[in-house]
Amino acid sequence: MGDFSVARRLVAEGLGSSLLLAVVVGSGIMGERLAGGSVAIALLGNTLATGAALVVLIGVFGPISGAHFNPAVTLVAALRRDLPWRLALAYPVVQIVGAVLGVWAAHAMFDEPIVQVSTKLRAGGAQVFAEVVATFGLVATILGTVRFRPDSTPMAVGLYITAAYWFTASTSFANPAVTLARSLSNTFAGIAPSCVPAFILAQLVGALLAAGVFGWLLQTDKTP
Amino acid sequence: MGDFSVARRLVAEGLGSSLLLAVVVGSGIMGERLAGGSVAIALLGNTLATGAALVVLIGVFGPISGAHFNPAVTLVAALRRDLPWRLALAYPVVQIVGAVLGVWAAHAMFDEPIVQVSTKLRAGGAQVFAEVVATFGLVATILGTVRFRPDSTPMAVGLYITAAYWFTASTSFANPAVTLARSLSNTFAGIAPSCVPAFILAQLVGALLAAGVFGWLLQTDKTP
Amino acid sequence: MGDFSVARRLVAEGLGSSLLLAVVVGSGIMGERLAGGSVAIALLGNTLATGAALVVLIGVFGPISGAHFNPAVTLVAALRRDLPWRLALAYPVVQIVGAVLGVWAAHAMFDEPIVQVSTKLRAGGAQVFAEVVATFGLVATILGTVRFRPDSTPMAVGLYITAAYWFTASTSFANPAVTLARSLSNTFAGIAPSCVPAFILAQLVGALLAAGVFGWLLQTDKTP
Amino acid sequence: MGDFSVARRLVAEGLGSSLLLAVVVGSGIMGERLAGGSVAIALLGNTLATGAALVVLIGVFGPISGAHFNPAVTLVAALRRDLPWRLALAYPVVQIVGAVLGVWAAHAMFDEPIVQVSTKLRAGGAQVFAEVVATFGLVATILGTVRFRPDSTPMAVGLYITAAYWFTASTSFANPAVTLARSLSNTFAGIAPSCVPAFILAQLVGALLAAGVFGWLLQTDKTP
Repeated sequence: MGDFSVARRLVAEGLGSSLLLAVVVGSGIMGERLAGGSVAIALLGNTLATGAALVVLIGVFGPISGAHFNPAVTLVAALRRDLPWRLALAYPVVQIVGAVLGVWAAHAMFDEPIVQVSTKLRAGGAQVFAEVVATFGLVATILGTVRFRPDSTPMAVGLYITAAYWFTASTSFANPAVTLARSLSNTFAGIAPSCVPAFILAQLVGALLAAGVFGWLLQTDKTP
Repeated sequence: MGDFSVARRLVAEGLGSSLLLAVVVGSGIMGERLAGGSVAIALLGNTLATGAALVVLIGVFGPISGAHFNPAVTLVAALRRDLPWRLALAYPVVQIVGAVLGVWAAHAMFDEPIVQVSTKLRAGGAQVFAEVVATFGLVATILGTVRFRPDSTPMAVGLYITAAYWFTASTSFANPAVTLARSLSNTFAGIAPSCVPAFILAQLVGALLAAGVFGWLLQTDKTP
Repeated sequence: MGDFSVARRLVAEGLGSSLLLAVVVGSGIMGERLAGGSVAIALLGNTLATGAALVVLIGVFGPISGAHFNPAVTLVAALRRDLPWRLALAYPVVQIVGAVLGVWAAHAMFDEPIVQVSTKLRAGGAQVFAEVVATFGLVATILGTVRFRPDSTPMAVGLYITAAYWFTASTSFANPAVTLARSLSNTFAGIAPSCVPAFILAQLVGALLAAGVFGWLLQTDKTP
Repeated sequence: MGDFSVARRLVAEGLGSSLLLAVVVGSGIMGERLAGGSVAIALLGNTLATGAALVVLIGVFGPISGAHFNPAVTLVAALRRDLPWRLALAYPVVQIVGAVLGVWAAHAMFDEPIVQVSTKLRAGGAQVFAEVVATFGLVATILGTVRFRPDSTPMAVGLYITAAYWFTASTSFANPAVTLARSLSNTFAGIAPSCVPAFILAQLVGALLAAGVFGWLLQTDKTP
């Protein structure tokens, strides 16, 4: 990644986050509109689109910026000294700005009012615990595959989120920028602003937990 | 690609475009017939088939002709001097002819009248904007993966279109040859001829925009 | 493949064909039983299982026997001198025997009568033409990927059949051994014996057509 | 794998088994809740999540512990002397403890009572035969891909289970630790304790059968 200028890295993080949110929110709207009330089928379409897009976006932007698109991942990278703190402070800004623009692009594509605020409540201890698990798994996926087979990281993250949309009660936000941006869409993927702080806190806890556990687990004991 | 004669490259572009359209239109008919009115389930089958087939077709024809199957992609390749203009003028001809033959093959397989004209309106600013986004993303996917991991391009394009069928309001045509050919099918995948010009214009805008943005973004700043 | 004895190769072809048919017929029964009348959803389950299993079976048995599981593919391999005729005559025997045993295993797993004969008519010129296209595409997939990226063949065949279940009106049998064996199952995947000869003839035509077209198309014109 | 301490290997087996069961049981609950009575659609979501997660979990934990998550696989590894017996006795303990904790995590995420016992009967000779086939196929997948292309094992196992959820009448438990743990969940994925012993016996038979058949089949006859 050292080959790309800071400007390019910030644009990559912002553009990638924007496209990710356009996919998450856009496919949610498409699913909701077409599925005629079957939430399971809407979620199938939403899952398929999000998982597939993540593989592509991480493959395209990963070599430029690392393709975090996620302040929790950026925090873990900074703590592990994989990213200088100077960039670790700038990344979340472009991630959030990009994510919001992506939500608005999805609204424009589907002829929805651009500016919205979600009224969908996603609250309670179970949902918050689900976000801890979801983010723990996401960071575990990244640290494990980056360590052993970095080429497989884009596919692994896409598959992980595919699974996490279904096995966590919250459908796995696992990303503070995504959570904030989705509070600005009163559609399938939305989350009421009042529920955002608990989600973000849970995500940070899950990310730090994974950083701790995998920091220990991935140490080899013998020299090669 | 320099290993293959011009004749083989043109046949590869034509045959690949033909098979692509047979898949897009054929799986649309199958989905519509089997899904009993559930558009979401018809689109799931259509998506699965199109995404899977793209991986295969680009894997098979890519090493021969580049596997564009798409005049917008050919235009970008020519502007980037990745393809001589002589071929860049011939490719769209065989792409369009192949695409139309593929639509007719789908009709023949499903016992439909061979020659049809679509009456399905896909119009409005939102749909047109969706086509800009869809083609921007497609060209971004191609330029990014060809730059960093060319072996992953077939899978990335298949996954991108899988996502784009769901996250864009137009279900992502993203291809002028495909758009023209689908105007000749009054089935699930059809588009009324009156809507074709705006779609094609939007696709060219999206493709050129991506060529510009990624032309800048993919430049490395340091020598290795 | 020269590393494995003839006995091992024949067992691999037979066992692989058997598992393939257990998947095709078993997942058809599962889909039919669970989907409550929605043929599209039954076909989704059937498609997912068959596509996924093909990737695995070709990955496991390919290095031993080539993992044809298909007399039409074996015929093409023999004509291209990729397989000695002595084996090319033995392969279809174990493919067919294995395929029938696989159908019976599926029946046993689902508590169905072991011996059945299908009454499901799949006839007419459109279906027969669909089988020509389906087998043409299958052989094209194999020849193209084996030529350029042999490691990708298992995935490509799995994805091709995933698409072909939806884009061909016949749901793509594309395999004489599979066609014969499926005539012995009066379930979702069955085909009436009276329809078998036309299907097999169409499959051989499609396979030979692909062998001819790709025999020409895949020739390089310049020495490297 | 020799690079990691015994403690790390046991934690990897336990944590991986735990996440696997959280996915299997969690996505089953999600499917059941959202699908409104359509078992096929619930199983689609359950399949998608489980198959995707297996690829990720084996990719992350495989280099540390081998990522068995399955006493039947551990037994085969010990018999083939791929794993010392000392570890082969400890692995199942952490696999079972991890699996149970994973079930409980799923219950917590979905606001279900933590401690449950399943009342879902899965019995009869057909189901038991299905478990023999399911585990035979799983061990065949592992032995075959580890022998020829170890990098493809995570994807192959994920795809195999994707298929096996649909082509076996039991939806393929294929794992004694998973079977035990799922008896503690009275949700979609549950199995009544009375049915557990026959399932586990069938799984061991299938695993040993595959070990025998592939022990012979994968021997090369010529020296390279």
